[in-house]
Amino acid sequence: MALPAEAVSARFRELQDSICRALEDEDGKGKFHEDIWERPGGGGGRTRIMRHGNVIEKGGVNFSAVHGELPENIRGALNVQQHKFFATGVSIVIHPESPMVPIIHMNVRYFEMENGQFWFGGGIDLTPHYIDEKDAGWFHQRLKEVCDRHSNEYYDRFKKWADDYFFIKHRNETRGIGGIFFDRLTGEKEKLFSFVTDVGELFAPVYTNFMRLHRDDPYGEKEKSWQLLRRGRYVEFNLVYDKGTKFGLDTSGRTESILMSLPEKAGWEYDFVPVKGSPEEKTTLALVKGMDWLNR
Amino acid sequence: MALPAEAVSARFRELQDSICRALEDEDGKGKFHEDIWERPGGGGGRTRIMRHGNVIEKGGVNFSAVHGELPENIRGALNVQQHKFFATGVSIVIHPESPMVPIIHMNVRYFEMENGQFWFGGGIDLTPHYIDEKDAGWFHQRLKEVCDRHSNEYYDRFKKWADDYFFIKHRNETRGIGGIFFDRLTGEKEKLFSFVTDVGELFAPVYTNFMRLHRDDPYGEKEKSWQLLRRGRYVEFNLVYDKGTKFGLDTSGRTESILMSLPEKAGWEYDFVPVKGSPEEKTTLALVKGMDWLNR
Repeated sequence: MALPAEAVSARFRELQDSICRALEDEDGKGKFHEDIWERPGGGGGRTRIMRHGNVIEKGGVNFSAVHGELPENIRGALNVQQHKFFATGVSIVIHPESPMVPIIHMNVRYFEMENGQFWFGGGIDLTPHYIDEKDAGWFHQRLKEVCDRHSNEYYDRFKKWADDYFFIKHRNETRGIGGIFFDRLTGEKEKLFSFVTDVGELFAPVYTNFMRLHRDDPYGEKEKSWQLLRRGRYVEFNLVYDKGTKFGLDTSGRTESILMSLPEKAGWEYDFVPVKGSPEEKTTLALVKGMDWLNR
Repeated sequence: MALPAEAVSARFRELQDSICRALEDEDGKGKFHEDIWERPGGGGGRTRIMRHGNVIEKGGVNFSAVHGELPENIRGALNVQQHKFFATGVSIVIHPESPMVPIIHMNVRYFEMENGQFWFGGGIDLTPHYIDEKDAGWFHQRLKEVCDRHSNEYYDRFKKWADDYFFIKHRNETRGIGGIFFDRLTGEKEKLFSFVTDVGELFAPVYTNFMRLHRDDPYGEKEKSWQLLRRGRYVEFNLVYDKGTKFGLDTSGRTESILMSLPEKAGWEYDFVPVKGSPEEKTTLALVKGMDWLNR
């Protein structure tokens, strides 16, 4: 193969390094703690967690590269017949201390089977505790630029995919303002790898921008309480719907690495209804599919 | 039928009333707020929530009695062919303010189809933030007494069922010290109803005993932090494994009534390991299946 699997995982490992450096630089206090783990069936990973930084209350930037035999039930779930697999990826969730800074998630992943069949997946999505239309527009514009460099069709297609994927059905609301999401992309491997790498490289400049922009915004008890409720919804999405989480827990992945996505603290208030006309209500009303954040 | 479905739901409604009274009396401050809701397909319920009492931080005591057409996918899941159903039940989860008072869950339910086929289900299980062997023994003894009044086989069978059901597979730990759990019990309807009613009536004396016993136990920051982590595990169980929760969310039940089981606040700390020899470690080590709480 022109692009060996090891080249993909090596690039993803570099991506983890550069993202951790950028987040530590912008945070100014928090440092990532690294846990190196091995998978009994083959491969392993580097879990990196930051806790109680200046801006980041809890953040995980995980790399893994695993290989071995595909279990029977996974072959069924993936609808593939091959037995040997290789999978590598970077997964990030950042929960900031301040409710004025958004939660963010990024993932890039690559999967390959013994017959050379492969696919890429990934995405970036933003979950502001308070939606700011200007920020949302800026965020989606950055995603569109990266998409457009690779295909005119990517942004619309992957934006819609994110709306559909990051959706909390039992609440009838989206997790946040979405972003892009894609899975099982296959075709010209080098081109797809270049796109996925660009998505990964977009993460640090985008999120450090939001950290910088909002780290000193004032807030009080009301905003902290609201943040807990928004985080509660984040927990609901991740434990009830997120495929990566379910897949990981079902296949006895490393639980602590998978559940690093859960916030340090979250809350639930029975039948909470935001005050009419409040910023909390404004945010709730915008958690719908199909928002055109580029033209608002 | 000798025992009409309406008689079961009427008894369950009374049970909700008497439990709410007992909890309010022992709490001394908190009052239940009632929401009456209707199910578009038939029937409805009374959701009762207490918040910020003296002892109970958040508690739900829910009654519902619903009927109508069984959706296709539910018929498949239940492996039944009948189209019309009636279901009624009482569901309780109490999260106390103090980490020294245990979390408790109780459920009794009855399901009937148009051909008269029916079953009962239910159970009580206790999730102490700190396991006290004497309390655990007393709790299981009370459950055994109720079981023994109806069948010599019930306690052992339903205790094991609870161990297997209230199990957080990805943590390899039980939710708490278990209790009893049973589902799809069928046979002599009056006898089963009498057993299930006894289980329901055991709830108030058992839990008000724990409230009384531990409401004034001293605790500090360390115990509150530990409580948040234990509640995090409770959230994981309910959102990842609990069949009632999944069934409710999948069938577009009333989300706020279903998710009343989630605590006001919960927490997650990456790779938390309790201090060796601490009460937190002692509790963690006891979260295993097959503990004989009656003979320790």
